[in-house]
Amino acid sequence: MLIPFSDLLTHLPQGPHGGGNPTLTGVASLTTAQAGELTFVEHRRLLPQLQATQATAVILPLDADLQAVAQARGLAWVSVPDPRLGFALAINQFYQPASLPAGIHPTAVIDPTARLGTGVRIGPQAVIQAEVVLGDGVQVWPGVVIGEQVTVGDRSILYANCTIYERTQIGADCIIHSGAVLGSDGFGFVPTGDGWVKMPQSGRVVLEAGVEIGAQTCIDRPAVGETRIGQGSKLDNLIHIGHGCRLGAHCALAAQVGLAGGVILEDWVILGGQVGAANQLRVGSRAQVAAKSGLHQDIAPGAVMAGYPAIPLPLWRKVVAVVQRLPEMYQTWRKLNRTDAGN
Amino acid sequence: MLIPFSDLLTHLPQGPHGGGNPTLTGVASLTTAQAGELTFVEHRRLLPQLQATQATAVILPLDADLQAVAQARGLAWVSVPDPRLGFALAINQFYQPASLPAGIHPTAVIDPTARLGTGVRIGPQAVIQAEVVLGDGVQVWPGVVIGEQVTVGDRSILYANCTIYERTQIGADCIIHSGAVLGSDGFGFVPTGDGWVKMPQSGRVVLEAGVEIGAQTCIDRPAVGETRIGQGSKLDNLIHIGHGCRLGAHCALAAQVGLAGGVILEDWVILGGQVGAANQLRVGSRAQVAAKSGLHQDIAPGAVMAGYPAIPLPLWRKVVAVVQRLPEMYQTWRKLNRTDAGN
Amino acid sequence: MLIPFSDLLTHLPQGPHGGGNPTLTGVASLTTAQAGELTFVEHRRLLPQLQATQATAVILPLDADLQAVAQARGLAWVSVPDPRLGFALAINQFYQPASLPAGIHPTAVIDPTARLGTGVRIGPQAVIQAEVVLGDGVQVWPGVVIGEQVTVGDRSILYANCTIYERTQIGADCIIHSGAVLGSDGFGFVPTGDGWVKMPQSGRVVLEAGVEIGAQTCIDRPAVGETRIGQGSKLDNLIHIGHGCRLGAHCALAAQVGLAGGVILEDWVILGGQVGAANQLRVGSRAQVAAKSGLHQDIAPGAVMAGYPAIPLPLWRKVVAVVQRLPEMYQTWRKLNRTDAGN
Repeated sequence: MLIPFSDLLTHLPQGPHGGGNPTLTGVASLTTAQAGELTFVEHRRLLPQLQATQATAVILPLDADLQAVAQARGLAWVSVPDPRLGFALAINQFYQPASLPAGIHPTAVIDPTARLGTGVRIGPQAVIQAEVVLGDGVQVWPGVVIGEQVTVGDRSILYANCTIYERTQIGADCIIHSGAVLGSDGFGFVPTGDGWVKMPQSGRVVLEAGVEIGAQTCIDRPAVGETRIGQGSKLDNLIHIGHGCRLGAHCALAAQVGLAGGVILEDWVILGGQVGAANQLRVGSRAQVAAKSGLHQDIAPGAVMAGYPAIPLPLWRKVVAVVQRLPEMYQTWRKLNRTDAGN
Repeated sequence: MLIPFSDLLTHLPQGPHGGGNPTLTGVASLTTAQAGELTFVEHRRLLPQLQATQATAVILPLDADLQAVAQARGLAWVSVPDPRLGFALAINQFYQPASLPAGIHPTAVIDPTARLGTGVRIGPQAVIQAEVVLGDGVQVWPGVVIGEQVTVGDRSILYANCTIYERTQIGADCIIHSGAVLGSDGFGFVPTGDGWVKMPQSGRVVLEAGVEIGAQTCIDRPAVGETRIGQGSKLDNLIHIGHGCRLGAHCALAAQVGLAGGVILEDWVILGGQVGAANQLRVGSRAQVAAKSGLHQDIAPGAVMAGYPAIPLPLWRKVVAVVQRLPEMYQTWRKLNRTDAGN
Repeated sequence: MLIPFSDLLTHLPQGPHGGGNPTLTGVASLTTAQAGELTFVEHRRLLPQLQATQATAVILPLDADLQAVAQARGLAWVSVPDPRLGFALAINQFYQPASLPAGIHPTAVIDPTARLGTGVRIGPQAVIQAEVVLGDGVQVWPGVVIGEQVTVGDRSILYANCTIYERTQIGADCIIHSGAVLGSDGFGFVPTGDGWVKMPQSGRVVLEAGVEIGAQTCIDRPAVGETRIGQGSKLDNLIHIGHGCRLGAHCALAAQVGLAGGVILEDWVILGGQVGAANQLRVGSRAQVAAKSGLHQDIAPGAVMAGYPAIPLPLWRKVVAVVQRLPEMYQTWRKLNRTDAGN
């Protein structure tokens, strides 16, 4: 696909630009771009890479020095407030995501009580059980299984081989990646002398609009009530969301996060990869937790935490710097104790 | 569904009760229950929530104060030794889990050498390979793939899109959630100058009766011998069980636990979420390990451990309390060392 | 299957042997082997188990003492430089892995534009989308879904219910286990006042030859460019590989490892289970990282690291030994500070 730089500009936020109007062939990162390609620079510290890039055009921040370098190198350039966002919009001009062929594949098995909106696409080998409701433009990729009474909002995409248990509610404009499982039984058992008695899991999972769920991520339903993922929240791969958790709007959870039962995340919470959170705790809005941290208690809104158990990030950084000196401190302590004993 | 409170009582353990015989409409948690609903109270510390609940009926522990509050508020109530167990039994009266339609769906592909018990249900698009044996009442949900020579005991349920590799043995009354993989190759490779040579994985996975396996959990088979999950053990989502592990009876493993090869868990071991255990170690019966801990060596029966590497929980709590003071301790130590040097 | 010991020897590296030529019935571990079976001993410290084994034949290292014990006990034995490798070769004589029936199952759905090599086997319910290219001898197990324009090299095996997104390139002689997902969207979003804007993920995943991918492992594709797994690398179960990572040749990653976006592993890197690595960092060739460690910065070639954040393993061992003494050190420190204050 060939796109003149000037055509691209009409899709980006307005900003100063220069360097002519080359025809572009694609998009690439700053260090791998070839002649003909568009790239972007996010920070001034990438100035050396800008000086070396082989790209033909570049999206810059509003930074006169970077602009001067681009101009001097003969690159076509545009400056926008958020170059990463600009690059996302530019990729959309070059890239057409794969989509299912239109219509319902004859090998899909669809219960006659299911109700399908207009323009629904269903791929081969998909299974749609009784009383399912699919909104307009929903895509159900091959091998997906959708249980009884599930509802899926308009334009949502369920990628191949994901599984939706009964009664799950998926809002509009959601994306569910392959292998994800929504609505599986919460891990609830009551210990008795004879073993663990299963707590029936009669609740449901609810995804509000605009949620994205990564590959292999599991969201369990609770014994009673619901597990809810708030509007616009994004979950990466291999995440576990326990029964009865409630995520607010616009949370972002990196891969392999695990939330035990009943955890509450308020709006805009960001959790790094492999973070774990214990039962029933609450994380305040816009709190951020560094990768691999373990949360054992409530976190205040806006807090930035790290470690296991998690402590404020600046304190954690100081602790980490000292930990390596512990063996020396221990030697001093032992000598000190011997001296004390000798007195 | 409408159930008189008195009908419910016949399904619960005997205990004192009072407050009349309302007709109940459902079950809910203490804080979300509405008029007409049943809830439960597990601890006396929830007394304030009991005073505020909108529920119509409540399951209590054997506690006269809680009974007095319920009576004073005009709630129907019953006291039982284990309210959580009582609530589980009560949910079973209101809740009918989804089940497959009876029979074998015509799109299922079943090898002619497979042997099916009475009342087996097989959903659309399932695949059952050669010499598989399914016991009476087994449910195979849509998209499940069962490999050669697998056996599944009576009444076990295999939910949608799980995969059972060849020769796996599943006992009676097991539940396998969606996406779980049983019997995949153990991670065995021998390093050579040319790369890793694959150790053939000729063993099998065995699940004893009453085991539940969470969504996306993987249990690998070993090079020789078996990987075994003991009777009544419960595994949550996204767990990795390495080749040749042996779990005793009634173990409970929370989500994202990882056991390396050859780990032995004796009976009734409880592991918190994201716990990891190194190769070949043994955890004694009724030991418990806190979430996110790392086990590097054997754990004694009944021990309660935490941390990485795991140490006894009370000691770990003391260590954690001190860790935050490390930067101050370090400052003192530096001053001390300078003084020593100055002497 | 019955195999004379002498037949087995022709498949093993040359080495001294003794103890006659029994007919062998199978392979087993040193402690579980029964009469008629072959086992192996890897280290001299297993000499007591060798003295107790019920096996009939044993593969030994080049160790005269172990040979003497085997000879004295009347075992058939052979000594080879790498007994584990020898055992792998011996298992291959006894064990025939399950394979798909030849041909294309009639329930598989194959786009007419797909190109299939000779001897390709495709199981029931598999789905192969447009313009896919499968090399000679490829096995596609039941329920696998392969997206548009994917290429799969000769002899590669895709086990049941794995999912390959569009444009992924899989080399020759790869093994993809059940539930694995290759080529799902990288976790790229740009924060705005209205929520997270999705960064289109227009790149692809590339697996070089001889790669093995464990069950449930996810490998994301990047916004631009590729995510690449080098030749002969082996990934265990439930691993997350973020968008744009590049693994060199012969890396080995244990279960539940998580690599954030853009991580580079050079050749022969070994990561223990549950290791996490932050964005964009580089791990030098032949570096090794202990299980559960967290990497926050580049690691030098050949380094052996442990902990969170990871530090050199010998230092980490010293730190860990001291950590348990922290509460005592803290008491001394408090007393010291009181004394200072008292001065």
